[in-house]
Amino acid sequence: MEPIYLYDTTLRDGTQGENITFSADEKVKIALRLDDIGIHYIEGGWPGSNPKDMQFFDLAKRVSLKNARLVAFGSTRKPGTAPEQDPNLQALLAGGTPTVTIFGKSWDMHVEKIMANSLEENLAMINDSVRYLKGNGRETIYDAEHFFDGYKNNPDYAVKTLLAAREAGADFIVLCDTNGGTLPFEIDSIFKAIQKRIVDSGDAGSAGLTVKLGIHTHNDCGLAVANSITAVHAGAVMVQGTINGYGERCGNADLTSVIPVLDLKMERPCISGDNLKKLNSLSRYISETANQVPLHNRPFVGKSAFAHKGGIHVSAIMKAPKAYEHMDPALVGNQRRVLVSDMSGKSNVVYKARELGIELDTNGYDSGKIVAEIKQLEQQGYQFDVADGSFKILMEKFTDQFEPLFTLESFRVTIEKDKDRPCSSQATMKISVGGKEEITAAEGYGPVSALDNALRKALDRFFPDLDTMRLVDFKVRVIDGNRGTAAKVRVFIESRDQDQIWSTIGVSEDIIEASWQALADSFQSKLARENQIRSNKIPEQEELPIFNTKGARK
Amino acid sequence: MEPIYLYDTTLRDGTQGENITFSADEKVKIALRLDDIGIHYIEGGWPGSNPKDMQFFDLAKRVSLKNARLVAFGSTRKPGTAPEQDPNLQALLAGGTPTVTIFGKSWDMHVEKIMANSLEENLAMINDSVRYLKGNGRETIYDAEHFFDGYKNNPDYAVKTLLAAREAGADFIVLCDTNGGTLPFEIDSIFKAIQKRIVDSGDAGSAGLTVKLGIHTHNDCGLAVANSITAVHAGAVMVQGTINGYGERCGNADLTSVIPVLDLKMERPCISGDNLKKLNSLSRYISETANQVPLHNRPFVGKSAFAHKGGIHVSAIMKAPKAYEHMDPALVGNQRRVLVSDMSGKSNVVYKARELGIELDTNGYDSGKIVAEIKQLEQQGYQFDVADGSFKILMEKFTDQFEPLFTLESFRVTIEKDKDRPCSSQATMKISVGGKEEITAAEGYGPVSALDNALRKALDRFFPDLDTMRLVDFKVRVIDGNRGTAAKVRVFIESRDQDQIWSTIGVSEDIIEASWQALADSFQSKLARENQIRSNKIPEQEELPIFNTKGARK
Repeated sequence: MEPIYLYDTTLRDGTQGENITFSADEKVKIALRLDDIGIHYIEGGWPGSNPKDMQFFDLAKRVSLKNARLVAFGSTRKPGTAPEQDPNLQALLAGGTPTVTIFGKSWDMHVEKIMANSLEENLAMINDSVRYLKGNGRETIYDAEHFFDGYKNNPDYAVKTLLAAREAGADFIVLCDTNGGTLPFEIDSIFKAIQKRIVDSGDAGSAGLTVKLGIHTHNDCGLAVANSITAVHAGAVMVQGTINGYGERCGNADLTSVIPVLDLKMERPCISGDNLKKLNSLSRYISETANQVPLHNRPFVGKSAFAHKGGIHVSAIMKAPKAYEHMDPALVGNQRRVLVSDMSGKSNVVYKARELGIELDTNGYDSGKIVAEIKQLEQQGYQFDVADGSFKILMEKFTDQFEPLFTLESFRVTIEKDKDRPCSSQATMKISVGGKEEITAAEGYGPVSALDNALRKALDRFFPDLDTMRLVDFKVRVIDGNRGTAAKVRVFIESRDQDQIWSTIGVSEDIIEASWQALADSFQSKLARENQIRSNKIPEQEELPIFNTKGARK
Repeated sequence: MEPIYLYDTTLRDGTQGENITFSADEKVKIALRLDDIGIHYIEGGWPGSNPKDMQFFDLAKRVSLKNARLVAFGSTRKPGTAPEQDPNLQALLAGGTPTVTIFGKSWDMHVEKIMANSLEENLAMINDSVRYLKGNGRETIYDAEHFFDGYKNNPDYAVKTLLAAREAGADFIVLCDTNGGTLPFEIDSIFKAIQKRIVDSGDAGSAGLTVKLGIHTHNDCGLAVANSITAVHAGAVMVQGTINGYGERCGNADLTSVIPVLDLKMERPCISGDNLKKLNSLSRYISETANQVPLHNRPFVGKSAFAHKGGIHVSAIMKAPKAYEHMDPALVGNQRRVLVSDMSGKSNVVYKARELGIELDTNGYDSGKIVAEIKQLEQQGYQFDVADGSFKILMEKFTDQFEPLFTLESFRVTIEKDKDRPCSSQATMKISVGGKEEITAAEGYGPVSALDNALRKALDRFFPDLDTMRLVDFKVRVIDGNRGTAAKVRVFIESRDQDQIWSTIGVSEDIIEASWQALADSFQSKLARENQIRSNKIPEQEELPIFNTKGARK
């Protein structure tokens, strides 16, 4: 079977997404990662549309790609303009890429009503532009914008636009569902008709031309992945999409789903098995660079994609993973997670404790009793599935292994506000470490920040390593908000140092009390780990690369 | 054509999602919203699995649904146990719902390897359990867990499990893609085979039984919506899914996509056009209640779903919206957003100001300047679309109409903690009303609660009506959580009295400052309204029913 060509447009169509922007420099780094995983075509931008994209192509000339071809994107020539005079086509050539993609109109309504152009001139624009690019030695991909809407409205004309591209020598013709409103059944039947008419027909043979078909979908109905694989099923050999599905409106086809479906489920391998294992880190790298919170439930690569909460499910996967896993998460570089929640049973807790090196039932600790206590805490609002640091401390407390590395003697926080000047917060804190007391005071952006600073200052005398640690995420959730300001709140804190990321939790009707619990657990976790490293119980890890700040979070 | 039955399992399978939990009370409110939009079946929980779900069914007995049937979920009887003795089946009946769903095993591997059960006993468990529930007058839905995996492994046995349910009189048989690994082409061919064998076959006729087929999918390959509509295309008449696709791992089929695809694209109407317009607000209500950030690029109902960024696209949609919109966003209660232009913003603000009785441009106030200031505030994290009380105050300030009914002179909050005793909070506050000062002190559950109490006490001397007002919801969201405890927070407060519900907002790096802003706006709104009622500018309204606490929020 024909191999599948993966065409990534994260750098162009992806940046049409709300809040998605990349600097030219970031684009180069992303291109190198896409190349590394084995993407075949990387669309870098539209050199005719903005200076940043032109700058990217200039920068890109200085790096060499191992596998991928870099692609410049643009439109067909303007009406009534010769290709040699057309600024957009000239910018495309100036991009200096081996491959060029141009888009043209397939929908008669669009040509006449939006472009105020004639149907004939539109065909000539497509034909001339492709011919000109081919004449200049470029591999040429023709993107048929709005193809499915056009075909539904006027199939004869829509097919003519493709023939115009084919006759001019286009290497690929890509059918685009630009508005994202087409259903898989429609993709299937229209794609098969076009395959017959454009690729398999005698016409193509007589002209001696071979053209390949591709697909470009959008997710406006939640169907972009389905539409992409349906097109492959119907004959497409190129799939255009973006990493994490970033793109305008609801986004483009998410390649982090398309690739493993093709590779693992449809036996249409498009990248090697070793490269497939990089998919998870690629997805996180792109989220991180785009400064987007990674989607936990993203298929294949999300943090929750192989997370099990229900007790029945957990005991089943301990017998046979395929009972509740459609594939081995390691194939895409992901991993199984077992969540501890009010729905989970004993097996989750035993499994999690074992991960932490605590054997429950063999050491005389009754796991049934511990599960009951955990459920009781979860009833109060704790959620240990997302607070590994606090869960470890709790398990150590249950099994009498917890050794607090500092003890709070007292704190006092004062918040003052005068008229409409901003609040100011101060904290004083007294702690003791191994019998020695320390008292400090600090300010902060608010009471929690003041407590954080005061604790840090107090611990500094005993543990000078603490400056590698910082809080990277702080979340507050009000449980039972309808008790107004007497509502219970749950505070999550995520912390990191140079080689670890951990989460802690606190719950109380008092937001300061809840924050303090999470804060104290976070510092206890850090100090316990430092102790273990010092006593060689665990090896030091490689430093986390700066870009993996969130990626490595588990 | 057969109508489609929508079956929502947000309250049961949805809560298997990481970080998704609802209190029993929240579940009741959600059920009322699902009923209101026209969902046919609402699965409330698994009464046999945890006390919270049982509590929900008890609460639910006190409310009446307009359209929907409430469903209790559970498993078939245990091996070797009579239905009358089976605690799970007894709990299902005790739920008191008109409809019951039970799941059973279709996959021989699962029966033998995971359950260590015999294939025959498994068939008997299905048959007995369905028969028992039917005998107790319950409409019975049979969920065939892992059906597609089972069918691929051993089609004969998988079909036998369905026949066991059909012979016992099941009203619906639902084929479940429990692990989410099945592709649409497989769904299509397997579904058609089952339709033929189970529904259309002479067997069914001879037993005089009619059974309907349904589909239950998971999103592990990003294909849950596609698989659901493919099954409908192949004959399914029930679709099980969740609002926003919440659910274990990568989630369930997202009904906010399934419903409009069926209704608007496949001409298989399942809810009325008027109800379809509520889809957007339903989606947000569920996100809000689950305290999940709404997904901006969620198809149909996301904030970005009809947002246009590219200049070409914007000028095209001004000529013909369908140029870059696959449907009219108003059909699902959503709206177009143009990201590059201020124009939509301005008309929104003018429109909203008019709703509050403020004519912007005619009174010499430059609406363009006001829009720019609002955008500036929204850039900082304010969100006025969900804080009507604060928006009104802001507009009054912009148009010099704001008359504060009290002024803060100063406050001081002290929080103290000793060892592991709980925190205690005290607030002192000085305010002035019409030139008279009042100073008070109060305690509270935390610093915000102490401020709330102190303000209430201070105002009481001037405004004795205040005791009808209470804060009903308090939400904190951390914006930019990755700045740790220096992160900016947004606080929402929802307040009500006997005839109004209003929302206010505050944003700051200091959680106390943000809470104070929202608290002060809430009291100002209440007092302004009291003044207007006293001067007969607005009539007193009917009392609000207790259950609309969240429903009426807009």
